Amino acid sequence: MATAVQSAPVLIGGQWRPATSQSTFQAINPTTMESLPQTYPVSQWEDCDAALSAAAEAAEQMRRLPADRIGDFLDAYADAIDAHIEEIAELAHQETGLPVSPRLAKVEGPRTSNQLRQAAAAARQGTWAVPTIDTKANIRSCYEAIGPVCVFGPNNFPLAFGSVSGGDFAAAIAAGNPVIGKANTSHPGTTRRLAELAREAVQQVGLPAATVQLLYRTSHADGERLVADPRTGAVGYTGSRKAGLALKRAADAAGTPIYLELSSVNPVVILPGALAERADQIVDEFMTSVLMGTGQFCTNPGLVLALRDAATDDFVEAVRSRFAATNPGVLLSPGVQQSLTAAVDTLVRAGAKLLTGGHPIEGCCSVENTLLQCSGQDFLAQPEVFQTEAFGNASLIVVADSVDQLADIIRSLEGNLTGCIYSSTQGEDDAAYERLADLLVQRVGRLLNDKMPTGVAVSPAMNHGGPYPATGHPGFTAVGIPASIHRFAKLTCYDAVRENRLPWLLRDKNPTGETWRFIDLQWTTADVGS
Amino acid sequence: MATAVQSAPVLIGGQWRPATSQSTFQAINPTTMESLPQTYPVSQWEDCDAALSAAAEAAEQMRRLPADRIGDFLDAYADAIDAHIEEIAELAHQETGLPVSPRLAKVEGPRTSNQLRQAAAAARQGTWAVPTIDTKANIRSCYEAIGPVCVFGPNNFPLAFGSVSGGDFAAAIAAGNPVIGKANTSHPGTTRRLAELAREAVQQVGLPAATVQLLYRTSHADGERLVADPRTGAVGYTGSRKAGLALKRAADAAGTPIYLELSSVNPVVILPGALAERADQIVDEFMTSVLMGTGQFCTNPGLVLALRDAATDDFVEAVRSRFAATNPGVLLSPGVQQSLTAAVDTLVRAGAKLLTGGHPIEGCCSVENTLLQCSGQDFLAQPEVFQTEAFGNASLIVVADSVDQLADIIRSLEGNLTGCIYSSTQGEDDAAYERLADLLVQRVGRLLNDKMPTGVAVSPAMNHGGPYPATGHPGFTAVGIPASIHRFAKLTCYDAVRENRLPWLLRDKNPTGETWRFIDLQWTTADVGS
Repeated sequence: MATAVQSAPVLIGGQWRPATSQSTFQAINPTTMESLPQTYPVSQWEDCDAALSAAAEAAEQMRRLPADRIGDFLDAYADAIDAHIEEIAELAHQETGLPVSPRLAKVEGPRTSNQLRQAAAAARQGTWAVPTIDTKANIRSCYEAIGPVCVFGPNNFPLAFGSVSGGDFAAAIAAGNPVIGKANTSHPGTTRRLAELAREAVQQVGLPAATVQLLYRTSHADGERLVADPRTGAVGYTGSRKAGLALKRAADAAGTPIYLELSSVNPVVILPGALAERADQIVDEFMTSVLMGTGQFCTNPGLVLALRDAATDDFVEAVRSRFAATNPGVLLSPGVQQSLTAAVDTLVRAGAKLLTGGHPIEGCCSVENTLLQCSGQDFLAQPEVFQTEAFGNASLIVVADSVDQLADIIRSLEGNLTGCIYSSTQGEDDAAYERLADLLVQRVGRLLNDKMPTGVAVSPAMNHGGPYPATGHPGFTAVGIPASIHRFAKLTCYDAVRENRLPWLLRDKNPTGETWRFIDLQWTTADVGS
Repeated sequence: MATAVQSAPVLIGGQWRPATSQSTFQAINPTTMESLPQTYPVSQWEDCDAALSAAAEAAEQMRRLPADRIGDFLDAYADAIDAHIEEIAELAHQETGLPVSPRLAKVEGPRTSNQLRQAAAAARQGTWAVPTIDTKANIRSCYEAIGPVCVFGPNNFPLAFGSVSGGDFAAAIAAGNPVIGKANTSHPGTTRRLAELAREAVQQVGLPAATVQLLYRTSHADGERLVADPRTGAVGYTGSRKAGLALKRAADAAGTPIYLELSSVNPVVILPGALAERADQIVDEFMTSVLMGTGQFCTNPGLVLALRDAATDDFVEAVRSRFAATNPGVLLSPGVQQSLTAAVDTLVRAGAKLLTGGHPIEGCCSVENTLLQCSGQDFLAQPEVFQTEAFGNASLIVVADSVDQLADIIRSLEGNLTGCIYSSTQGEDDAAYERLADLLVQRVGRLLNDKMPTGVAVSPAMNHGGPYPATGHPGFTAVGIPASIHRFAKLTCYDAVRENRLPWLLRDKNPTGETWRFIDLQWTTADVGS
């Protein structure tokens, strides 16, 4: 076993320093199944405690800094990511198997820096904070920093959802909070490199040294202790349901807001009129959506709902043959490979028919492109089992007997991030649409028409969220600025507070000339009293 | 024991019907300590189950109704409350001891109907839902109804926070949800009468019959089952910390949003310059704030922090003599009386000096006006014990040695609804203010200057909330429209959804001509594309 001195340092209080650790781990290159040489420490509580203390101090300091400084940091960090994207993409490729280009260097990298820049603009303008003023009562309120935020990043977006670079990070920083990142253990080296760039940007603009900190791994018990610690203001977590719910229990018991993005099967309803009209196009769209990134998206269409008829049979056969004829991509890690084959086994044992795929591929982290099918009746007999998420390049097609049965199936669904309905452009599916959309929309965070769910635009109108257990609260989005910033903020009211003591957003004069404020029930960029 | 037939009926599915119940309870007139004649049922699970099923059906129907209908209901109900306020105030007086006038008939009644009318206007306009449109990506989102809301009302505001009439009720309905009210057991008759008026208004405007339902009491186990039931969309609770946290555990485990308003001691810092300038005025303001309503406000100033000097001694003596010379009011119930004397005992056992009061008064629910004092050192030795809430006409004055010690005391505070700082108008307290306000504001939902915390204006800028354990989440307010409505809503995104299928708030044309929408990062009342 590597000693603590040999393993990578953790970033605490602005310093890269040896972890307090008794064990280490290594990342695995999923393309070769070989362990990468660098070892990383499993931190003990002492590291968490030190990071929390440093973060608490940084949080105090950040309260007193101008928002422009935070914007400058986010912009500088975005520039640094852009400048180093080839190196970062190469590192991430080694650790995740995701293609360097276009995926990492041309898509996820720009998405990440773009998101940081949007967060910078939001922090500078302040509209995100919903500055609200009642001039008659002289009561004013806005959202403010909530305190140190612990971010647990997922395996599937090493940059755009990374614990020290992604959407949760950008939102937490924009709200004025320091971040303690917990690297996803499948790509510690990528996260380390990003944290190095973040640290340099922190120094460059003069933010508190502990604005960005990084640990690689802790015991489960220490992770729960971390989120429940009174110094923690809030938590962002993206990952498996089991680990997320354990953290949720700990955070809930401490009264700490925790935002989770857990599993989702993202039902796609394909109505007969759509198939009659453009089956080939839908096959193409579905293929792209379910196989892109080896299907490792939170919004992967893992569940297709269709009606029993010849067109559906043709659709299924077209997808099956395309799945079988397409080389499967590399999965993120041996863990993903194992959980995918286990999920397929679960579905098959429950009675799903394996139309193609299902087997692991020797020598790398990969599983054959997998298509399963079951009847509506089967699904309704065991709706929980048939909603098992098969994270990766797999999907289950449910063939229902009737629109009534489709409605029952949708009623049996857990909360999901997305739900799609494909329907005829000519109106013949409209009655079914109306009935099913009304049920589906209550169970998802985002409803799509005639479009697969895998694209999650960084748009102010996006909701990357949804009812439990897709997330922990259906009122928040993890993607989309400014809305995602609210998660990491507390509402504070200033009642009769003297004008010179008010925070910058709530003084009479509009703080930037462009900040939208809700004054006497009207949104305006004007000054108070103007 | 009364049989189920004799006891008051519950309101389920639009019908007043006998409860499924094996036990009953009676309210007590706190002025006379006598039980009031009407018995009320303790419902068994069957009643909860029936209410949940009816609410789930009503929620489906409400999704399809125009927002104007909801506005009409809220307005009609407000009118009915105004028209019957004398009768309601008399009922509430019997059950709570609160004065008929001005308190119930002239203050709380109008506050209640005004709040319902504000909710009606918000529902009609739709700005509360933050309609957000990205025209380039054709992604649109807004807040929508979350599903049946269970409201547990507190004892201290039978109308304005009542389970079928108060702020949580108004917000839940405005968002488009049916409400299952759980009456506070200290004023079941008042709540019953309000539910009768609500039911009539529901019928008058044609909302689903189960829009408003009422149970009086359940076992603790059934209460927890009710909030964790999958048919429950969200929960609002105002009351004791113990019962609230039990419900929170149950709701959290089910992933159901629960909004709690629990205990708060509402620290008031009085700085030396303020005392030197206007001690008499501050004594008056404090007296009014702590004794009004017999101190039974969530925002009662239960903790005063001052510096050790002669002016503070004079302030304490002035308050003590005024407390002793003022007749104590009636408390809401024997339970409130007992918990107040128990809290005083706890504080005294911890070392607080009882300056005046502390004893129960025979023959009615009342306790002498109570003032306690301790040193800053005492407080810091046991900060948790000294933050014991003495709900009622009591307050603890902490006399600190220095501003440093005041800072330490504030650092030791739990989350509170409010925090006040009185300071000189001439600037001599400014250094202390800056230091202490910066700490205090992180621990409270509302910071006040030179003003006691008991007034909670129904203002769009109000925050009646705060960090845990004052509430369960520091990002939400229980008072103030439109912000309070968000608690009972889910965020839903419509991605590429055809225009004619969009909800009314998200279509191209501004739905009312006056609805504020966030289109391409600008707040506007214009149509899309105009």
